[in-house]
Amino acid sequence: MTDAPTDILHATHRALCEHGYAELTMQDIADETDLSKASIHYHYDCKHDLLVAFLDHLYERFEERIDDPDGETPAERLCTLVDSLMARQSDAPAFQTALLEIKAQSPYDDAFRKRLQRFDDAFTDAVREVVSEGVADGTFREDVDPDVVASFLTTFVNGAQTRHVGVGHPLDESAEAVHGYIGDRLLSDSRANVAVGSSEGVDVGGASE
Amino acid sequence: MTDAPTDILHATHRALCEHGYAELTMQDIADETDLSKASIHYHYDCKHDLLVAFLDHLYERFEERIDDPDGETPAERLCTLVDSLMARQSDAPAFQTALLEIKAQSPYDDAFRKRLQRFDDAFTDAVREVVSEGVADGTFREDVDPDVVASFLTTFVNGAQTRHVGVGHPLDESAEAVHGYIGDRLLSDSRANVAVGSSEGVDVGGASE
Repeated sequence: MTDAPTDILHATHRALCEHGYAELTMQDIADETDLSKASIHYHYDCKHDLLVAFLDHLYERFEERIDDPDGETPAERLCTLVDSLMARQSDAPAFQTALLEIKAQSPYDDAFRKRLQRFDDAFTDAVREVVSEGVADGTFREDVDPDVVASFLTTFVNGAQTRHVGVGHPLDESAEAVHGYIGDRLLSDSRANVAVGSSEGVDVGGASE
Repeated sequence: MTDAPTDILHATHRALCEHGYAELTMQDIADETDLSKASIHYHYDCKHDLLVAFLDHLYERFEERIDDPDGETPAERLCTLVDSLMARQSDAPAFQTALLEIKAQSPYDDAFRKRLQRFDDAFTDAVREVVSEGVADGTFREDVDPDVVASFLTTFVNGAQTRHVGVGHPLDESAEAVHGYIGDRLLSDSRANVAVGSSEGVDVGGASE
């Protein structure tokens, strides 16, 4: 009827939301499906292999999400991009915690490290691209370096996620802070005090010179 | 001869550097001292209690480190402050990984959460104070909001640490990026292209208006 590996990956998502990563068992995942633990083992030898496959699955969704972000202008698209990793994180807190647990395992686990690097590269590339567009069309200041901003925002988004898990700092406050950074630091017409909205998009009318 | 609890806390630091947090055992800590595992259990019931005591010990050192940061001007002091959590991290990578593991445990562990909140508050407060000084003496632009910058930089520093552990992003690159932010976004005289150095301090000569 349905595709077992896909079912298992969706079940893994639900199980991570409920149990986090460290405590997760193959049985927890089986409990989220109609399959037995043995059938899951038929597809994935162990929890680690399943988690690696899950990260690949997550990456495919991530790539779609950050490809061609919504927005009329580069500033709007940049806000959409950073928000996609912060403001819209309505995933269960346990899921974000699980991702942080996986990051903390990364130095001991080459397969995790390689997957995390792909996420990091893809997000950095996506930011660099939209910032480059913005510099080219005059939305952003001409002295803005897309490489520097891309790395800066990737680091900031990592921090927003970590601080959310570690001390419960609200993701929407981090999103607002980064909108302020985009408005103050990047927009070529920052003196005009152009509103950089959050939920309803960014008003950068008149920002291109 | 020496103070057993202090010896144990120092041994915990060394053991975390070697083994990380998840795999750490009381025996690993005992192996770093002249004490038996039983003597360590005499002072601390379990690994968790010892880790909580260790975080308190770390916090005391942290408070000293961020109190009255070196520098002639608020901009220099702000760089010293952020560098203290990034550029100078010559601690073993495993130690930083251990701290990230502890952050990832925080949602399940009130004692950890409370300690992490103290670190977060102390760093935010320290940044807010030096930024306020800088706004007051004209080093920083008068439209700079110390609360916003304090939270922004705390988030960024969290991100630098996470990205360093997760994908090996160099801490000195993150430090350089944040110096750029301070120079471009905060300094009142940013058009003068004032050098914001790293190791040898910050040259903000002429920045106060």
